Amino acid sequence: MVKDYPEHLELSQAWQILRGVFAEAYLNFRQEIEITDALGLVLARDIVALRNVPHYAASAVDGYALDADATIGASPATPAMIKKENYAWVNTGADLPVWANSVLMVEDSAIEDGVLCVYKSLTPSTNVRPLGEDVMAGQIIAREGEIVSPALISLFLNAGMEKVSVIKKPGVLFIPTGNEIVPKEEWLANPKPKSGTVAESNSLFIKASFAQWGFTVDVTPVLLDVPDILKEYVQKGAKEYDLVLVGAGSAKGDRDHTLTVFQALGEVLFRWIRMKPGRPAMAAAVDGKPVICLPGFPMSTAVVLWSLVYPLLKLLSGVRGDQKELIREAIGTREIWDTKLLVQHSSPAGVEDWLRVKTARVGDTLYSWVLTSGASVLWALAESDGIALLPASALECEKGTDVQVCMTKEVDLSRRILFQGSDDPAIQLLATPIKRWGGDFVSRAVGSMGGLAALGRGECHLAASHLLDEHDGTYNDSFIERFAAGRDWRRFLVFYRMQGIIVQAGNPKNIRSFEDLCNGDFVFTNRQPGAGTRVLFDYYLKLNGKSPEDVKGYAQQCSTHMEAANRVHTGLADATLGIKSAADALGLDFIPLAEEPYELVIPAEYLEHPGIAALLDALQDSAWRKSVEEMGGYRWPN
Amino acid sequence: MVKDYPEHLELSQAWQILRGVFAEAYLNFRQEIEITDALGLVLARDIVALRNVPHYAASAVDGYALDADATIGASPATPAMIKKENYAWVNTGADLPVWANSVLMVEDSAIEDGVLCVYKSLTPSTNVRPLGEDVMAGQIIAREGEIVSPALISLFLNAGMEKVSVIKKPGVLFIPTGNEIVPKEEWLANPKPKSGTVAESNSLFIKASFAQWGFTVDVTPVLLDVPDILKEYVQKGAKEYDLVLVGAGSAKGDRDHTLTVFQALGEVLFRWIRMKPGRPAMAAAVDGKPVICLPGFPMSTAVVLWSLVYPLLKLLSGVRGDQKELIREAIGTREIWDTKLLVQHSSPAGVEDWLRVKTARVGDTLYSWVLTSGASVLWALAESDGIALLPASALECEKGTDVQVCMTKEVDLSRRILFQGSDDPAIQLLATPIKRWGGDFVSRAVGSMGGLAALGRGECHLAASHLLDEHDGTYNDSFIERFAAGRDWRRFLVFYRMQGIIVQAGNPKNIRSFEDLCNGDFVFTNRQPGAGTRVLFDYYLKLNGKSPEDVKGYAQQCSTHMEAANRVHTGLADATLGIKSAADALGLDFIPLAEEPYELVIPAEYLEHPGIAALLDALQDSAWRKSVEEMGGYRWPN
Repeated sequence: MVKDYPEHLELSQAWQILRGVFAEAYLNFRQEIEITDALGLVLARDIVALRNVPHYAASAVDGYALDADATIGASPATPAMIKKENYAWVNTGADLPVWANSVLMVEDSAIEDGVLCVYKSLTPSTNVRPLGEDVMAGQIIAREGEIVSPALISLFLNAGMEKVSVIKKPGVLFIPTGNEIVPKEEWLANPKPKSGTVAESNSLFIKASFAQWGFTVDVTPVLLDVPDILKEYVQKGAKEYDLVLVGAGSAKGDRDHTLTVFQALGEVLFRWIRMKPGRPAMAAAVDGKPVICLPGFPMSTAVVLWSLVYPLLKLLSGVRGDQKELIREAIGTREIWDTKLLVQHSSPAGVEDWLRVKTARVGDTLYSWVLTSGASVLWALAESDGIALLPASALECEKGTDVQVCMTKEVDLSRRILFQGSDDPAIQLLATPIKRWGGDFVSRAVGSMGGLAALGRGECHLAASHLLDEHDGTYNDSFIERFAAGRDWRRFLVFYRMQGIIVQAGNPKNIRSFEDLCNGDFVFTNRQPGAGTRVLFDYYLKLNGKSPEDVKGYAQQCSTHMEAANRVHTGLADATLGIKSAADALGLDFIPLAEEPYELVIPAEYLEHPGIAALLDALQDSAWRKSVEEMGGYRWPN
Repeated sequence: MVKDYPEHLELSQAWQILRGVFAEAYLNFRQEIEITDALGLVLARDIVALRNVPHYAASAVDGYALDADATIGASPATPAMIKKENYAWVNTGADLPVWANSVLMVEDSAIEDGVLCVYKSLTPSTNVRPLGEDVMAGQIIAREGEIVSPALISLFLNAGMEKVSVIKKPGVLFIPTGNEIVPKEEWLANPKPKSGTVAESNSLFIKASFAQWGFTVDVTPVLLDVPDILKEYVQKGAKEYDLVLVGAGSAKGDRDHTLTVFQALGEVLFRWIRMKPGRPAMAAAVDGKPVICLPGFPMSTAVVLWSLVYPLLKLLSGVRGDQKELIREAIGTREIWDTKLLVQHSSPAGVEDWLRVKTARVGDTLYSWVLTSGASVLWALAESDGIALLPASALECEKGTDVQVCMTKEVDLSRRILFQGSDDPAIQLLATPIKRWGGDFVSRAVGSMGGLAALGRGECHLAASHLLDEHDGTYNDSFIERFAAGRDWRRFLVFYRMQGIIVQAGNPKNIRSFEDLCNGDFVFTNRQPGAGTRVLFDYYLKLNGKSPEDVKGYAQQCSTHMEAANRVHTGLADATLGIKSAADALGLDFIPLAEEPYELVIPAEYLEHPGIAALLDALQDSAWRKSVEEMGGYRWPN
């Protein structure tokens, strides 16, 4: 009989269910293990010292061991005299002779003809570290539930323990599934994988995450989307492991069989969580073991790992913890930062929203902005400085909204500069030289106009401009003047770069001039409003007496040269306007149109910023200049 | 020729020297490795994607792939009709046929006799995830200096990379030395090690610390204190490893040869650091490799590992960082807490002072207190909640001084209760049952009087009392009344316990009565002022018409029953006053004197505290009560 199970839960509800069902499971994992294997494990019972540490009474100083009785009444005026056989030299840490109960410091004595002159009266135990000073035999030195630390391991040895009773770590199996999934070796061996296929990269992410957390996971071969195969593997997994993870198959497509398999084998605990990404998560109990279905998109896998699998790993290891705290740990949070949104973000209604954000401080404001939010976009996770989890109540988050970020990377805000402006591959190459010079360069491609506007609003440290004034054919001057509005903005002419028409390799459509683009035969792909390249395109349109309606695809927007060139490369467009280096990078043909000056614009107040100083140094970096020259399409100013 | 080197540096100076000398060493460690082995390593150069991710244009929806041209002008009123051969069904994520450039959502269509009716006009790229949406071939996806994360490993695979260039982790060798050091197996095999010997436990601490940090270390056998042997090992180590650690031998004793060996082999960089513990640290460069001498006491080894070795490991791995930050990482800091000292602490002048502290919140105040501060005391490190590093300028730290604690353990302050008062082994056993009932019990043994006084000052949640009023022979009433000073303090009679004279096993000195203790033939060891047991002793003195001068060792103070009994056990004293369970634990003889009531005292305001609630539950715990009965010397109240 198929039991009812809750659907579309909140994340905290999903965790409560798991915690309720598997709270006591760790009690089955008690094990005696060698102390040197116990690091990070939870103790299963109180640990009682078997020996005194130290196990003998040791001298606490360099001096003479003796019986304190023999010193009664001794003083500099009335020294006690002790014969050779009644005292003995001891080093710090050495054991006392059995007949001695105290140690006289050298400075309180003298030796005359082998007789010790004692100038001080001692009581028993003076300058003696008693046996058991650190730990006494029979003392509880660690408690049930405590996590074994390096210090405890060392203490266990000193206290005479070879083994301790701990909760062993759960054994975990991951079962990737999907007809379209290509195993790692096959994927790497074939430089041109079939369209519609995907690399089996989730197991790498899972293995690495487990390694970071101090756990391990076994991975089966990728299963085809056949219910009977999956059933066999899950059944066997639940027998041999303490936790089973199934990759994908929890949606409602015709190849999604995970639910059916879970229902056939055990009890489904919940299905679907009100969060984004990660919604298609699902959990079941099979043979009393937890089985979790991880949605297939990389970012979905990540958030379910963080929010449910890691807390479950801890629970099964005997660690109690708050879900919120555990999620922060799972993410690898170094610090929590209170930031303001740099750019508006729309969050779906009634759904917790996992954001991958970058951060920078401009003036006194610590900003964060959201990187692409798709579940399929892995780069955004790798690139992010941290993770923010927006509550379900957040909807339209205006610019300036408070966002708390779990920082996963170490960011030195005092060195970081935020560039907003015109995208250029040569500028992207500059980040590493800037780092070598002691700065930290992060950028947002918002076009020349967007950058100058952001600079005007105090939302970045620098912008770039290659804007053509269609009234007089001059570049940059009028725009920078307008946005600066009287403020002291400095201009740095970095290079001239060649703009032109980018067409497919070998120019199969035989596009030869700007006019050809407007004849309606070809699909063009454009840049976003405010991009200097778009301004240039509009200028050419006007020069040629054409209007946007004459250009098929004029409304298509790409926000970088590379993105636009890639559309041409894939055949989604026949042509775009862009710089030569973008065409070269993808092996596309290039028809030169015009050379334009590319200038950086930096408010004077930031010139002393360590990041800006590093940038100005890096612009002279010979290795960087060589790379730029090799890209082609750039010319240095005289 | 022997070069000069600085002595008695500040910790930050020592680090500056190491950082200066070894800043570029990591450049020799560049290596191409499999992406799956790269977790946590630093990238040695920018990483450029070899493939587009995704590598094909994929449908973003379930629907019909078609050429957008065929839909021009389509609307519900004027549908475009497309023949079977010119459209194709695609699932989300599937690739588009070559002749298609957009995808029509199902809801905007109908099928009639195999002909697709299109109700919407599409432009090229509609509902298509372009090739390279996540990452474009040629794009820099990770930067030199970045640490490889799980997400990056996954991204590397997707982008077609099998290997990446990283900075490999440094190879590290630890050489323990010392004639008195006994290897682990030998130590464990012999339940009664020779006096003056010490277990080789530092290598366990070092190995476990390295494991926590994601590094490994090889360990040589323990070397005898012979300069030529050490020289051979250090020389070989510096050839084969990137960092060599030498255990002990840096002091000025006659068996300390490390300095001589370092001078013979290379250049000594510094010797001795103005901190406590850890002062005898020393560093040298041998064959261009760093060689660090770790002082032998466990806590000294720990602080040098944290403050110099870990930052050096990171430096050699290509990570730049601030020493203070790196020390916090090394310690395993979870959070930093601002606390007030509960007990005065004296710090040595001009020396940074590493404190091991416990914490608790009483009322609104977050307190910390220092555990024993000896370098040889390992238990204090294992037991501590965190570490505080007092600056050299701190001297006499009064109660209430602000202390910042790097918390290494997770402490739930809302569940933690602080007990100050009379020490008792049965109460120590209560901590684990309290934890099971949802509380967290920490204690300071300050004697009955000390506990009641602390409770009166609001410095703990509960105290205990077994104080005899010598005026009327009653227990507790008058004392509790006095300290409560009208406040509502509740009393819980836990048990009666038997106090008596504890003497050596078999009673070799033939002590039979209290009077015997006062005849001057025997060495007594006393408890601290304010301890109920000391009050009892003083009462018996008076009853017998004796004075403290009649008792040899009256001035010797121990702060727990076990510590006092241990003095008897080791022969440092012939007798003490204490409870039967302490005598039993060490196999000592016991001469009963009097039964006393042991009461817990809890202000009414704390009765709702989760920790107190758990304690009151735990007092009824049958397993605990059984353990107490087994200890002997306790009687439950009727």
